[in-house]
Amino acid sequence: MAFREVYEKFVDLHYQPGKDELLCSFYIEPMRGEKIARAAGAVAAESSVGTWTDVPGLKMAHVSRIAATCFEIDGNWIKVAYPADNFEAGSIPQVYSAIAGNIFGMKAVDNIRLMDVQWPAWFVKSFSGPQFGISGVRKFMKIKKRPILACVPKPKVGMTSQEHAEIGYQIWTGGLDLLKDDENLTSQPFNRFDERVKLCMRQRARAEKETGERKACLLNITAPGAEMRRRAKLVADAGNEYVMVDIMTVGWSALQEMRDVCQELHLALYAHRAFHAAFTRNKRHGVSMLMIAETARLIGVDNIHIGTAIGKLAGDKPEVLSIHEHISKQKVTENKKLHLLSEDWCGLKPVISTSSGGLHPGIVPRIMHMLGNDCAIQVGGGVHGHPGGSMKGAMAFRQAVDADVEGISLAEYAKKHAELAQALETWGYLHTK
Amino acid sequence: MAFREVYEKFVDLHYQPGKDELLCSFYIEPMRGEKIARAAGAVAAESSVGTWTDVPGLKMAHVSRIAATCFEIDGNWIKVAYPADNFEAGSIPQVYSAIAGNIFGMKAVDNIRLMDVQWPAWFVKSFSGPQFGISGVRKFMKIKKRPILACVPKPKVGMTSQEHAEIGYQIWTGGLDLLKDDENLTSQPFNRFDERVKLCMRQRARAEKETGERKACLLNITAPGAEMRRRAKLVADAGNEYVMVDIMTVGWSALQEMRDVCQELHLALYAHRAFHAAFTRNKRHGVSMLMIAETARLIGVDNIHIGTAIGKLAGDKPEVLSIHEHISKQKVTENKKLHLLSEDWCGLKPVISTSSGGLHPGIVPRIMHMLGNDCAIQVGGGVHGHPGGSMKGAMAFRQAVDADVEGISLAEYAKKHAELAQALETWGYLHTK
Repeated sequence: MAFREVYEKFVDLHYQPGKDELLCSFYIEPMRGEKIARAAGAVAAESSVGTWTDVPGLKMAHVSRIAATCFEIDGNWIKVAYPADNFEAGSIPQVYSAIAGNIFGMKAVDNIRLMDVQWPAWFVKSFSGPQFGISGVRKFMKIKKRPILACVPKPKVGMTSQEHAEIGYQIWTGGLDLLKDDENLTSQPFNRFDERVKLCMRQRARAEKETGERKACLLNITAPGAEMRRRAKLVADAGNEYVMVDIMTVGWSALQEMRDVCQELHLALYAHRAFHAAFTRNKRHGVSMLMIAETARLIGVDNIHIGTAIGKLAGDKPEVLSIHEHISKQKVTENKKLHLLSEDWCGLKPVISTSSGGLHPGIVPRIMHMLGNDCAIQVGGGVHGHPGGSMKGAMAFRQAVDADVEGISLAEYAKKHAELAQALETWGYLHTK
Repeated sequence: MAFREVYEKFVDLHYQPGKDELLCSFYIEPMRGEKIARAAGAVAAESSVGTWTDVPGLKMAHVSRIAATCFEIDGNWIKVAYPADNFEAGSIPQVYSAIAGNIFGMKAVDNIRLMDVQWPAWFVKSFSGPQFGISGVRKFMKIKKRPILACVPKPKVGMTSQEHAEIGYQIWTGGLDLLKDDENLTSQPFNRFDERVKLCMRQRARAEKETGERKACLLNITAPGAEMRRRAKLVADAGNEYVMVDIMTVGWSALQEMRDVCQELHLALYAHRAFHAAFTRNKRHGVSMLMIAETARLIGVDNIHIGTAIGKLAGDKPEVLSIHEHISKQKVTENKKLHLLSEDWCGLKPVISTSSGGLHPGIVPRIMHMLGNDCAIQVGGGVHGHPGGSMKGAMAFRQAVDADVEGISLAEYAKKHAELAQALETWGYLHTK
């Protein structure tokens, strides 16, 4: 039996997946001369029981029961169902090694993109999900209605711990909530982690006293496993409420462990996604950002960056909105246009969508119009580039948010708020309609 | 000052990088209407001190000292130098968050690929590298001259622990060294990890007694952090010498920690690369497989899959050979054709290249002609698909290797070795020239 005939055994367009099966939506481009059905069968084979030559093992009782089945083909889009036994409960690395492993290098396809997964209930329930979610963060930050506001120092790397903490004081007293480390700032010689924690906590105490508001730091603990756990402990001992992790460069195993450590230490977990675009940007190959965000919800991060939805790239907005929907709702319906599957999160808390990248006060109403109040907005240059400096930039940003929450246009609000007026003059004003 | 003018400040084609700087070779495609020099400057900026608006911070003394510089532009290829302070010694997640982080999503480029890094000596020396390397593995496996031979059961997933261990007995007594778990087999209900370890060790003892040779298992411990460490301990306690990890789906942080755990437990570390092709396959975007293999050497895996170099894809062979060179030699010279940088590994042991994917006995001479004897060869269908079954398939494979080491052609050797003759009839014979 030739391998091509075997591959076709993995396709059954009349197949009805059982409720315990994991479903995947893939975009595929068969290699030259290959039919879509055979390529689809090759994907189902290689990501489950696998083979390139004869498969005498398919006679084995259990092997035939766990072979995956392609049950839908729609142009270049296919859906594949995987019996439950393909996966280990509670293990993200294992599920990725199956459905997002060798198939990316298969010769049967020139391109293949994993677009979405419908996680079966037994699998969802094997994870804890976010510890805090939006309601938990609102509670410890004492923020009732508006989005959570984070700010990264600019330039992103190079300031000493002292300079960094002083920027914190400015943006906190200007009205922002979270001072965020940049993704490539961890513990370099000019700004050691332990020193930064100490100095930031000192400035935070000062800012909290002056403003009467709660303030916190997103301290980037990204490091090899044991050292990352030490840094988390240090942050908790210093009295801060949040840690930040570069989830893609740290990887799934350490992130899963860190979720448990954060629970023990009562720390919220802020996810930065640096590296994701190495495999999410090409719309024909790799893995979608939606998949990464859904995986982060299973594991249980409290925030994740999802993009701005304001960018110039085509398709940005529907993609960002679908990610926001999938990580914030309890039940999500199928989206046939984007080839996204339905989802039931079985009570796992929502992840807070963080909008970031090129934001300034004039964009705030547009962001809030799209994401609502239950989100986080992260800004950098759009605060520090303010003509009056970082503190006035922070004031302008907070004014824009407060205006929108109160239902007042920025133009109107700016009449009585000089910092916002200056910001709108500097960067312009993007109306919501 | 507009951001575009700022970006050009990050380019200096007369710049001579210092010996402590980390150098990167990137392929970039500027966005429509953008000049290569400005796009190159944007890459250098975003991966070091970063900005999208004015950078008053560049006046800060230290920030200007750590800004990266693009010092070479050759068509679409650029080289960027990063001052040492951009990086944290001993941290792979941090260096990736800098040089392989946000730049993949930058609008200034439509595509960007990180091709190679020249790691400065201070950075190389902050890692331990492989614990065993080829000489260490030869010693504990008692294999003098020939390549190490590994075999994965087929079908890859679905057999019970019992069936899996019995396949082990067959391929071990047939003459192979290592029984390898597949990348998506960890601890599913039908084949629990702890049970598999126990049963495989029993079959190994039997096979060692009958053959008088050393045998071992590549047990896939891939799991969330703490559970992965528990499994490693279990493997060591059972007396096995190797563990396997899906390094991409586990991630860098946990892999770095596992390297230390393996040292404590005297375990060799076998790296599977499932997921890599999500970002290595597209030659214009993402990260090269060479980068992944070099990173694995810094961290210290003992084996890594590098491909077959026999495939039909253009460019396969030079790429695979360059990976083999970079992970096995102590000093590597610049390769201008492939845009690869020179390297000095400062005494870190070599990683064993594992050739795998669609191999059978008839391909063995070609593989050994390219990679030499100091490699590992991993086979699956090319053993189990043998007309005589897995044990005879293993015999045929070992015969092919022994023949090549002795300098005898397979055709000649097959005259007195029926299993090899059958294999050559089944799959053919790929001559070395």
